[in-house]
Amino acid sequence: MEDKKLSDLLEVFLTVQISKELPRQGFLYSGFKRNEADSVAAHSFSVALFSYLLAKELKASGWKIDPDKTLKIGLFHDLGETITGDIGTYAKDLARGVFDKVEKEAFELLTRNMTNKEEFVEYFDEYLKLNSIEAQVVKFADALDAFVQGFNTPSANLEDLRKTVGNRLKKKIKDALLAELFDKSVYLIGERKVTVYKGHIGSNQEKQSIL
Amino acid sequence: MEDKKLSDLLEVFLTVQISKELPRQGFLYSGFKRNEADSVAAHSFSVALFSYLLAKELKASGWKIDPDKTLKIGLFHDLGETITGDIGTYAKDLARGVFDKVEKEAFELLTRNMTNKEEFVEYFDEYLKLNSIEAQVVKFADALDAFVQGFNTPSANLEDLRKTVGNRLKKKIKDALLAELFDKSVYLIGERKVTVYKGHIGSNQEKQSIL
Amino acid sequence: MEDKKLSDLLEVFLTVQISKELPRQGFLYSGFKRNEADSVAAHSFSVALFSYLLAKELKASGWKIDPDKTLKIGLFHDLGETITGDIGTYAKDLARGVFDKVEKEAFELLTRNMTNKEEFVEYFDEYLKLNSIEAQVVKFADALDAFVQGFNTPSANLEDLRKTVGNRLKKKIKDALLAELFDKSVYLIGERKVTVYKGHIGSNQEKQSIL
Amino acid sequence: MEDKKLSDLLEVFLTVQISKELPRQGFLYSGFKRNEADSVAAHSFSVALFSYLLAKELKASGWKIDPDKTLKIGLFHDLGETITGDIGTYAKDLARGVFDKVEKEAFELLTRNMTNKEEFVEYFDEYLKLNSIEAQVVKFADALDAFVQGFNTPSANLEDLRKTVGNRLKKKIKDALLAELFDKSVYLIGERKVTVYKGHIGSNQEKQSIL
Amino acid sequence: MEDKKLSDLLEVFLTVQISKELPRQGFLYSGFKRNEADSVAAHSFSVALFSYLLAKELKASGWKIDPDKTLKIGLFHDLGETITGDIGTYAKDLARGVFDKVEKEAFELLTRNMTNKEEFVEYFDEYLKLNSIEAQVVKFADALDAFVQGFNTPSANLEDLRKTVGNRLKKKIKDALLAELFDKSVYLIGERKVTVYKGHIGSNQEKQSIL
Amino acid sequence: MEDKKLSDLLEVFLTVQISKELPRQGFLYSGFKRNEADSVAAHSFSVALFSYLLAKELKASGWKIDPDKTLKIGLFHDLGETITGDIGTYAKDLARGVFDKVEKEAFELLTRNMTNKEEFVEYFDEYLKLNSIEAQVVKFADALDAFVQGFNTPSANLEDLRKTVGNRLKKKIKDALLAELFDKSVYLIGERKVTVYKGHIGSNQEKQSIL
Repeated sequence: MEDKKLSDLLEVFLTVQISKELPRQGFLYSGFKRNEADSVAAHSFSVALFSYLLAKELKASGWKIDPDKTLKIGLFHDLGETITGDIGTYAKDLARGVFDKVEKEAFELLTRNMTNKEEFVEYFDEYLKLNSIEAQVVKFADALDAFVQGFNTPSANLEDLRKTVGNRLKKKIKDALLAELFDKSVYLIGERKVTVYKGHIGSNQEKQSIL
Repeated sequence: MEDKKLSDLLEVFLTVQISKELPRQGFLYSGFKRNEADSVAAHSFSVALFSYLLAKELKASGWKIDPDKTLKIGLFHDLGETITGDIGTYAKDLARGVFDKVEKEAFELLTRNMTNKEEFVEYFDEYLKLNSIEAQVVKFADALDAFVQGFNTPSANLEDLRKTVGNRLKKKIKDALLAELFDKSVYLIGERKVTVYKGHIGSNQEKQSIL
Repeated sequence: MEDKKLSDLLEVFLTVQISKELPRQGFLYSGFKRNEADSVAAHSFSVALFSYLLAKELKASGWKIDPDKTLKIGLFHDLGETITGDIGTYAKDLARGVFDKVEKEAFELLTRNMTNKEEFVEYFDEYLKLNSIEAQVVKFADALDAFVQGFNTPSANLEDLRKTVGNRLKKKIKDALLAELFDKSVYLIGERKVTVYKGHIGSNQEKQSIL
Repeated sequence: MEDKKLSDLLEVFLTVQISKELPRQGFLYSGFKRNEADSVAAHSFSVALFSYLLAKELKASGWKIDPDKTLKIGLFHDLGETITGDIGTYAKDLARGVFDKVEKEAFELLTRNMTNKEEFVEYFDEYLKLNSIEAQVVKFADALDAFVQGFNTPSANLEDLRKTVGNRLKKKIKDALLAELFDKSVYLIGERKVTVYKGHIGSNQEKQSIL
Repeated sequence: MEDKKLSDLLEVFLTVQISKELPRQGFLYSGFKRNEADSVAAHSFSVALFSYLLAKELKASGWKIDPDKTLKIGLFHDLGETITGDIGTYAKDLARGVFDKVEKEAFELLTRNMTNKEEFVEYFDEYLKLNSIEAQVVKFADALDAFVQGFNTPSANLEDLRKTVGNRLKKKIKDALLAELFDKSVYLIGERKVTVYKGHIGSNQEKQSIL
Repeated sequence: MEDKKLSDLLEVFLTVQISKELPRQGFLYSGFKRNEADSVAAHSFSVALFSYLLAKELKASGWKIDPDKTLKIGLFHDLGETITGDIGTYAKDLARGVFDKVEKEAFELLTRNMTNKEEFVEYFDEYLKLNSIEAQVVKFADALDAFVQGFNTPSANLEDLRKTVGNRLKKKIKDALLAELFDKSVYLIGERKVTVYKGHIGSNQEKQSIL
């Protein structure tokens, strides 16, 4: 690898560091304190991981889905924000049409010197369009992660969040089976029917406690 | 997908949320304030992304490497910590032999109900063993991310960090070319020879500023 | 005052609370940790206060300026952000033309039920246009506050900040004398020629210490 | 403006920066975590803004009140704390008589080199005495802001806060109509009868959600 | 005192500073945000103080107990963590046998150059063994402090905490009377039957409010 | 122990919890960000521990000193602040005479129902008077802890801190040998001649690194 290439790669790496500090601004509008909002980076990790695991299970149950592609869409889905910042829905709504362009342009700017930039932009674009099952799985993870973050934060307005998350998804997840899985997930978590592992409590009970 | 499977999947998802709050404890020992340390989740995102991009460039320059596998190793490389917590090097040294087992056991516990658990454990194990080029690229990203985090944090003891990062790597990256790339990366960043994109400063200058 | 009016007023009050938690996002792009960035509310206070004090001194030295109006422009200058969020310069640049409209629209939305909304919108508009000396004094305060915030934060890239602040101002403060005062202020603070009062250190030394 | 005057002005500006970091200490005693308490600066902004808007509405409904003066009292009302720090009610009670003097002295010290210092001290003094309607409107805003901050913070003891805020006000707001407006405000907010604008949720619903 | 001794002493002092930043990691696993967890140092202070006060009262009621020794055990009880970090129960369980050794070894390392190191290690060891009434009083304080920290933090799962604290204690406090006092304490606090002094609320009411 | 006594004891315990969240306000005036200041509880722990260890070494070198008493003075030395809050030097100076009384009164209030309250008040009083060698050792620890906290925090004005700490001590530590030890300690730490143990770096190097 040439020095110029390494340098280009490091530029992306350093630029992306901002995502560790950027709060997910939308949560502040739902009543979170600044330190209660997760970072864009932490959210992206959670989304990438869950998207991949869900895709693997769907594939194992016979769905036609590419888990590796799903993972890469999840990894990239919020990268534009490292350049544009996290822009609120209100501003986006008012400036609609302009914004999808802005986010994509930012992503292209970030990755402009990568040898495989066309492939990367394709993943990003697929998420903006939400036509493939892979992109919809990432949207599923994106929304569920927001819901869980709210569920774990007492200053959140949970009812508000549930509605927002629900409404947003209805428009976006066109696959009916996937939409149903999402509703089930919100129900299972919301009703505390899912157990959580807690490393600090001890290894002797397998399912140690409800969230 | 059966309900039981969904429930199992959500257990992993909820358990992993802790990684958003877990500080990378090692940084505290290097003099960071609690809020200056990044989270295990944010670090994992940065590592997964950089590992993948580096693997893609290496492959483009003719290296024999599997970028998708690299990405998955990066995604999983710190997942054991969501159950064991971030255990310091000192404690690990004293209890050596015991700890690799503990981390792997924790990872297996976390993923025990996933249909593809064997595949996942293989990725994790590969990182522990560091024999493949893919695993070594993730280790590269892991160390470089620690270095950059320190570089961006004034209360860090930079000299200390540089030495620690350097020493740790020497033992771990067996591929000579990769080790050389790592040294170059630390040099380029440390000497501020890499530019960073800053979305808040304006779009009219392409390379806006040195870190 | 009618109940409907009180209720409308409280809506503004509650909506504006978000400004206490919103970090000034631009600082994150200059390398600040999340908790090192001040809030939109704290910044607005600092700007309103300094704008007013500066206007009072300018008037006392014979300038033609309305301090009360200056104060009100300072008070309102970032209120649009309580609805749009803090949008980065990059995104603004890409979507230019769209954004001034968005900010003003947001301000109008926030104040739509206030009896004196026309007066308020005029203040806001005056700041967007920067034609009056009062608006330019607020812009002066806005930029100086950013500079001082950076000056007090070790993870800031000071050289970067100085340049950014300087460049931004040159385009905006058309009054030559005011621009000169700004440069002098940056010099005096940057070279640590201004003393600061420190309540915790004791009352016996009048000028206790350099910043 | 002479250089000496500019320098004096900047001293005030730099000294006041501390207010961005000072937590409203009283909230910690009500059970808030350190980062849940707002800063003295953010509180001052919220109070100045609401005081002004309320005064404007009162005047529009025929009250005899000077909104500009109200705004300036609001702007200055906590400035003494930038030098004395936020001193608790208990300590104030024990040292009563001494403390009003201390706060006023601190304010005078801070503004001692301002050309219009007498005018400024008058505003501050008016707030300490609470005889004018303008000062009482600021006290109203001061108490309501504390109530809302508590309302938005789950670790607050709300019942406690409501009582404290209520008791404090009864002694202080002598104007019966104003006191009634205050009670109504606490009721409307406490019973969640006021809507809030949330920029991140979307622009299509005018009244998007209850707090 | 020789220079070498002073230097050795300062090494301990500087090393222990980390405890001010180390979050009590276990709380993160109970759902706390990072800044809601107290520090190892703050916890240690609370435990040392309460252990001492409880021992003094027990002695005053006729128990055979050494309050000074109790205090010193409380002071030292978590000092090993300044070197090992806070290791979760899960990891400890898996590596049991190994860990008690690690903690004690870390404590010995920290104090290795102190003239009275044998005495100090004895205190530490006594806490690990929990055979004396003094050590059990410290364990009482350790568990009660965790319970109260949870009680004051809304994102805690209180039921979970109560159970965890209860279970942990049952195995550890062998003295039946002491165990009974502990249960009573959890009951009194949990049912809000204990008053708290709040310095910011005023000195005129002796028992100002329930927690 | 009677129920009433337990309840009284728990009141002290719950009241003292505030010290975990109270920032050492003085640091904010030295330019610290809010989260860079340690808590009153963490500081108290550090002071109590160091006071005790220093007293033990002094005694071992032949000084006439009671380490257990020193420890108890250290434990109690800032307890008044849990009721009065942390009051700045400026305010204290202006209200001098009044304040020592306030702090002592607050301590008496806090401990009023403890069986051994007279003994406790004696320790507290001894610290206010600074006549004994034990009290002066605690003052030593109190000042050194402030210096080290500043030393570890880049936004601190170190020169300022060194002077402040130095000046404050000169007036207070009357014992000449102790004063000399203090100066030596500041020198050793300030010139980075003391090593620190860092648990995350590894156990194989005994003196791992300079602060």
